[in-house]
Amino acid sequence: MATTRRGRRPGASDTRALILAAARASFAAKGFGGTTIRGVAGAAGVDAALVHHYFGSKDDLFMASLDIPVDPRSLLAPMVAEGPEGAAERFLGVFLSVWDDPEVQPSLLAVARAVMDPASQRLLSDGFLPVVILPVGQALGIDRPEHRMPLVASQVVGLILLRYVLRVEPLASMESDRLVATYAPTIQRYLTGDLP
Amino acid sequence: MATTRRGRRPGASDTRALILAAARASFAAKGFGGTTIRGVAGAAGVDAALVHHYFGSKDDLFMASLDIPVDPRSLLAPMVAEGPEGAAERFLGVFLSVWDDPEVQPSLLAVARAVMDPASQRLLSDGFLPVVILPVGQALGIDRPEHRMPLVASQVVGLILLRYVLRVEPLASMESDRLVATYAPTIQRYLTGDLP
Repeated sequence: MATTRRGRRPGASDTRALILAAARASFAAKGFGGTTIRGVAGAAGVDAALVHHYFGSKDDLFMASLDIPVDPRSLLAPMVAEGPEGAAERFLGVFLSVWDDPEVQPSLLAVARAVMDPASQRLLSDGFLPVVILPVGQALGIDRPEHRMPLVASQVVGLILLRYVLRVEPLASMESDRLVATYAPTIQRYLTGDLP
Repeated sequence: MATTRRGRRPGASDTRALILAAARASFAAKGFGGTTIRGVAGAAGVDAALVHHYFGSKDDLFMASLDIPVDPRSLLAPMVAEGPEGAAERFLGVFLSVWDDPEVQPSLLAVARAVMDPASQRLLSDGFLPVVILPVGQALGIDRPEHRMPLVASQVVGLILLRYVLRVEPLASMESDRLVATYAPTIQRYLTGDLP
């Protein structure tokens, strides 16, 4: 095994892994804003064009570095296309169907722990929020998405923490329909309701 | 042992510290339900009566082991005494005044990190929830507190995580009054509103 590796040039999968490792380290240490494709390329010892070739934009590189088995941006696209009315209910339906999938949940848990880890606090404020959460609000066409979406995040993150990470009852065992009916009014108000 | 080295008998503060260390280890490993005063006493090498003498009940020992500079049970007593109507607004007022106090916040952050830590997940579900959070609902006289209080916790924990731990804007800098007006309707519905 080791001989084979030494005897050939680095393959595409080695290069991808090197770039991803460099990207993860940079996003965790410098946040999304402080990370550049050029900096990641330099840390991985490759050309910036190769990073673009493998991963596309910085947004795409960030999503790839999180190693989520689903891309929340494409999952949420149909929910976003129907506009702000009833968006909270549709969002929670998609959100729970993905999180409750036993094949996907372990990877999502790993991402949630990374995003909530105080040691890499910029992953949420300076990565996940601008790349994933804010664009949902912008695509929905709600007013002040930069004010409203963090409120949505504050409820969704608490639900993830209690239901999936800490497994607090009755939330951990609650059926999906009941969770949607419980949380949709909260999230719909944060999205479109009267707020101070 | 420190006592032998220093040539004196263990003082009250040594004994207290020994008991607290044993209690913290037990609550984190076995949860609140799995911890007994007798077990903590055994691990600390003291008599169970001494644990009661220093710390009172198991609830009190749990609170002491969290090392919070304020006792949430006495802080919340006036808010609870006025009954369920408007309780969310009063709760948020007390909650923010304590959390925003720069003298108290560092200790609260340490507790929040411990309670949210997946490695000691039973601190919330099997400690903080039954000892601190559920009794508030019971004292308020709301129906199904064991169903409603975890919903309250899911929003409050998310707010703590985003405002204080991860410092996500605009939540991190938002004035107290505006936070109260933003979150009170959510929490009041969880306490007393129609829920599925």
